[in-house]
Amino acid sequence: MERIESYASFGGHQDVWKHRSEVLGCEMKVAVYLPPAVADGPCPVLYWLSGLTCTEQNFITKAGAQRYAAEEGVIIVAPDTSPRGDDVADAEGYDLGKGAGFYVNATEEPWASHYRMHDYVVNELPALIEANFPASSKRAIFGHSMGGHGALVLALRNPGRYASVSAFSPIVAPTRVPWGEKALGAYLGDERDAWKAWDATELVATATERLPLLIDQGDADQFLAEQLQPERLVRACEEVGHPIELRMQAGYDHSYYFIASFIGDHIRHHARALKG
Amino acid sequence: MERIESYASFGGHQDVWKHRSEVLGCEMKVAVYLPPAVADGPCPVLYWLSGLTCTEQNFITKAGAQRYAAEEGVIIVAPDTSPRGDDVADAEGYDLGKGAGFYVNATEEPWASHYRMHDYVVNELPALIEANFPASSKRAIFGHSMGGHGALVLALRNPGRYASVSAFSPIVAPTRVPWGEKALGAYLGDERDAWKAWDATELVATATERLPLLIDQGDADQFLAEQLQPERLVRACEEVGHPIELRMQAGYDHSYYFIASFIGDHIRHHARALKG
Repeated sequence: MERIESYASFGGHQDVWKHRSEVLGCEMKVAVYLPPAVADGPCPVLYWLSGLTCTEQNFITKAGAQRYAAEEGVIIVAPDTSPRGDDVADAEGYDLGKGAGFYVNATEEPWASHYRMHDYVVNELPALIEANFPASSKRAIFGHSMGGHGALVLALRNPGRYASVSAFSPIVAPTRVPWGEKALGAYLGDERDAWKAWDATELVATATERLPLLIDQGDADQFLAEQLQPERLVRACEEVGHPIELRMQAGYDHSYYFIASFIGDHIRHHARALKG
Repeated sequence: MERIESYASFGGHQDVWKHRSEVLGCEMKVAVYLPPAVADGPCPVLYWLSGLTCTEQNFITKAGAQRYAAEEGVIIVAPDTSPRGDDVADAEGYDLGKGAGFYVNATEEPWASHYRMHDYVVNELPALIEANFPASSKRAIFGHSMGGHGALVLALRNPGRYASVSAFSPIVAPTRVPWGEKALGAYLGDERDAWKAWDATELVATATERLPLLIDQGDADQFLAEQLQPERLVRACEEVGHPIELRMQAGYDHSYYFIASFIGDHIRHHARALKG
């Protein structure tokens, strides 16, 4: 791994690294915040998954997370949102292809050879982080919008792997909303039954681990009614007794101003689980 | 004034407004954070002046100031860094013209007709803010780099106007460093004596008000030796007994990661003075 950016931040360091991903078949950038507590030994790792159009930069410049990560002694790892590079397939529009990996393993061409963000985030990246940084093997995951979908799905698909999971404004039912139908149709093909393995509202019905889901959602979010529909996940959880806390936040929208306002709550939530 | 952006943020609102400036002769954008405390009555106002190349956006997206402004009940006003528009003079390079107003009143053409950022920030903007927002007439000022220079110079030139002043990585002696020599030479002409009225190290020698100066400076700042030289201001203050606290911060650079790490300290410092 090659460090390409490094900034002192709240007594720790906000760095950006470049590395070759075998899973994705391309070079990737990943942001890593190391809190001052790494001087005293390995720290647990909180993975952040960003939303549509983002790179590894949006979260580290806008969310204000470093202060809380420093206070709690948690490493935050923020990967890019898709494979990158000239030989990686792309599409017109912001909601498919580069910047829109949806954290799935694609099965359809031209996507299948590079778009394997699930395996990258769940397996390859933690192995790299735990081998190259003062990181323990305690992991938690959270994200925003497409990345909130990613956090929920990755946690539900991989019981035991994450100590906790939370999401801001997540796409909870991608099999039933336009963003998800477009992306899952492209990456997984026309057979809709195959999409269900990447939909939190479907996965929660058969989850073997009752990992509590914490969700913050602004009630002034411009995507709430058409793309997000968090009440679908609440209903699915209620049907099987899966613990969920949906906090509707009055007046907040889909932006990083919303994320920044509640990121401290989420980081403290994860720190409790990671240290518990 | 017309509101062109509005985001819920830490219980208050981060807005961006557009207005016609008579002083600058153009349309300007200005960011205004209103803390939740405005519901209980007028709040004091802390003015932030940004550095070279910035607009009103950089500070509000990257500094993480809203949390502390909400906690302290302080309004933060962040103007743009120069006049804007097609009929405003500009120059090649990032350090003169648009994005580089240096908070002076220009006397030389082609700058003199629009580049009057001192009068805009000191007089016109506060009058607009205090007439249109739940703002008291208590004012404080801070800024970064070129904006740190601006904060120091505006406070020193206008005794009694600001309850407190602070700066991150300020250009403290623009008459003696390349950025300042280029800008002051263009805006004020070749007569170097005229530049001294816009140089904090010169102004402090004759200041009638002993307003304490708080400065944070990263010791890994890439501009420290050539452009910033804060020890010049410390020496000028020591010669006349002007109170100054220069805090050299180990490992920090010139970026917003540095600003974010210490913005809470500065906002609390100003809140104490504004409420004292």
